[in-house]
Amino acid sequence: MREANAVGSRGKAAERDTLECWGGVDLGGTKIEAVVVDRAGTVLGKMRQPTPADGEPGDVVRAIHDALEGAAHAAGLTSRQLLGVGVGAPGAVNANEGTLGHVSNVGQGWSTPYPVAGDLGARVGRPVVLGNDVQVAVAAEYRLGAGRAYRSLLGVWWGTGVGGGLVLDGVPWRGRGAAGEVGHMVVKPGGARCGCGRRGCLEAYAGRASMERRAHKAVRQGETTILFDLMRKKGRTRLTSSLWARALAQEDALATWLIGRAVRMLGVGLASAINLLDVEAVVLGGGLGTRLGPEFAGRIHEAMRPHIFVPERQPPVRVAELGELSGAIGAALLAQPPMT
Amino acid sequence: MREANAVGSRGKAAERDTLECWGGVDLGGTKIEAVVVDRAGTVLGKMRQPTPADGEPGDVVRAIHDALEGAAHAAGLTSRQLLGVGVGAPGAVNANEGTLGHVSNVGQGWSTPYPVAGDLGARVGRPVVLGNDVQVAVAAEYRLGAGRAYRSLLGVWWGTGVGGGLVLDGVPWRGRGAAGEVGHMVVKPGGARCGCGRRGCLEAYAGRASMERRAHKAVRQGETTILFDLMRKKGRTRLTSSLWARALAQEDALATWLIGRAVRMLGVGLASAINLLDVEAVVLGGGLGTRLGPEFAGRIHEAMRPHIFVPERQPPVRVAELGELSGAIGAALLAQPPMT
Repeated sequence: MREANAVGSRGKAAERDTLECWGGVDLGGTKIEAVVVDRAGTVLGKMRQPTPADGEPGDVVRAIHDALEGAAHAAGLTSRQLLGVGVGAPGAVNANEGTLGHVSNVGQGWSTPYPVAGDLGARVGRPVVLGNDVQVAVAAEYRLGAGRAYRSLLGVWWGTGVGGGLVLDGVPWRGRGAAGEVGHMVVKPGGARCGCGRRGCLEAYAGRASMERRAHKAVRQGETTILFDLMRKKGRTRLTSSLWARALAQEDALATWLIGRAVRMLGVGLASAINLLDVEAVVLGGGLGTRLGPEFAGRIHEAMRPHIFVPERQPPVRVAELGELSGAIGAALLAQPPMT
Repeated sequence: MREANAVGSRGKAAERDTLECWGGVDLGGTKIEAVVVDRAGTVLGKMRQPTPADGEPGDVVRAIHDALEGAAHAAGLTSRQLLGVGVGAPGAVNANEGTLGHVSNVGQGWSTPYPVAGDLGARVGRPVVLGNDVQVAVAAEYRLGAGRAYRSLLGVWWGTGVGGGLVLDGVPWRGRGAAGEVGHMVVKPGGARCGCGRRGCLEAYAGRASMERRAHKAVRQGETTILFDLMRKKGRTRLTSSLWARALAQEDALATWLIGRAVRMLGVGLASAINLLDVEAVVLGGGLGTRLGPEFAGRIHEAMRPHIFVPERQPPVRVAELGELSGAIGAALLAQPPMT
C-alpha cells in the first residue's frame, strides 16, 4: 500500500541529506496526504494513506506517521532527518497545546482534545506543529499557488463544507484561532438549516453535504435527478464533486438548480467578506472549487458583482493551483521558521 | 463663534511651546471638529465649526483651517506650531494623493478629487494626512477608548449610515483603502433598497437615513407614529438619534419595530463579520450607537449570539468612549509617527 502511493526520487539521497527538509501532513476524513518539501516548498516526496476508519486517536497518529515515513522515504530520507513537521487538521486545533479535539469525521471521531503533536513528535523525534487544515492550505496557495501575486486574499474551500482562510498583508490572519469561517457567514437570516445547527449559513446552501441532503429531500418529494443513479453506477456512497460535475454536464435540472443556488449564495457571502476586508483576490479551492474550476470561479465572480461596494475594484476569483497537495504543503510551510 | 466653541487652557502656553503637538480634524456633513493633542492623545484644545453649507471645496478647507486654528489657540499655540495635522473625512479618501472625492453631504458636495491635504497644508505650513473618518475614529477607540484592552476589534459606527473599521493585531486594517464597510455586508439577498443603490445591505435596515425613509413610507401607508411630531416640536428637519431614543422611551410602535429590526440585522451582519475575522471585541460608536448606549450594545450582543460559530467565544460589544471627539482624536493620531 505504502509503496504504491509513495512518489519521489531516491536517486538523489546523498544530496538530500544536506538539504533542509520539512514534513507536512493533511489529515482528512478519508485520506492522509503527507509531503516532504525543501525551503522553497518544492515537493521532494509524497505519500497518501487511507485514514483508518473507526480508528482511535492513537491509530490515526500511527497512520500519519506511516504516511510521513513513506513521503520521507520517497525523498530519500527518514522522518528523523526532517527539521520539523506540520499537521493540518479539521476540528478544534489548539496550536499552543498541540491538541486536536471536536473531530467528527476522522477515524471514530473524538471530542476530548488529543495531544497529536506530542504523540507524533515522540514517534518522529522532531518538533510537530498543528494548524487548521484550510488555513494552512490557503497559506500554501498564497506563497506558491494562485495567490502568489497578491499581498492579501480570502481563500474559500468549497467542498463538503465551505471553509476559508485569510492572508492579510502577507500574514495569515487566524484571529483567536477560528478566523476564516466564511461558510458560517449568514447569507439568509432564518434560512436553511446548516450542519452546524444554525440557520442561513453560506454552508447550508453551498456545502456539498448540505446540497446532498437537499437533493435527497427533493427526491423524496418526487423530483427526478440522475445524481443518485450516477452515484450508484460509480459505486459511491456520497455525491462526490465529480458526480456533481457530471450531472451538471448532463444538464440535470436538480443539480443545476442546487449548484446555481450555491453560486448565488457564494456571491452574497464572498461579496460581504470583500466589502468588510477589501482584500485583493479570492482563491477558490476545495473539492468542488477545483473540480468545477475556472468556469465556476467566473460564475461566482459574476454572482458577487452586484453586491460589491467599490464596483471599480472587483477582486479576481482564481482557482487554487496546488490541487490536493495544498493542505500538506501548507502544513510543511507551517513547520518552517519564518523567512528572513 | 470661534471663541464660544473653543475649549482649552491658554495658561500653560509657555509649557506647550516645548510639547510635541498634533492637530486632528473630523470633517462631517454638519460640523467640523478640530482638536490639538499631545503624544499620548490627550486633548489640549478643541474647537467646533459648522460645515459651510453649499460651500465649494476651497470654502470647506478654509473652515477646517479656522477650526484648527481655534483648537490650537485654545491649547495656547498656533497651527504652525503643530508637528502635523490629520483629517478624517467621509467619501473617497485617497491617502497617497491627499485628495478627497465623491463627497455627497459636505458643503455643496463634489465628485472630482480635491487636494484637501495640499490646500490645507499650504495654509498651515505643516504636513497634512487624510484618512477615512470612521477608520480613524475606530483607531482612536482602539488606542484610548473602549478598545484599549484588546489587540483586535471591529468598530461599528451606527448613525446616518453604518460604517466600520478594523484593528487587527494592533494595526488598522484598511485593505486597498476601503475596508470596514460592514454596513454594506448583505444581510438579506434581494432585500430592502440601500442608499448605495444595492439591495439587502445592513445599512438598508440599520442606517438612520434608511430608517427615516421607511418611517415616511409607513406614515404614507397610514401607520401612526410620534417620530415626526417630535421632530417638528424640536425644530429638526431629520430624525436625529435623540429623537429615535425619545420615541423608543415613549414606546412608539413604529420606532420600536424599526429599531428592533435594525438590531436584528446588526446581529446578523456583525456575527458574520466575527465568524470571518474572530476578533476579540466589537466597539459600537456613531450617533445612534453612543446615544442608545450600553442597553442596545447588549441587545446587539444578544442578536449576534444565535449566529456566532464558536459560541463559547462571544465577543463583547462595547460602547465607544471618546464620544464625538473620537474622529478628530483619531485623525490627530494618524498624523503622529508610529510609536517606537
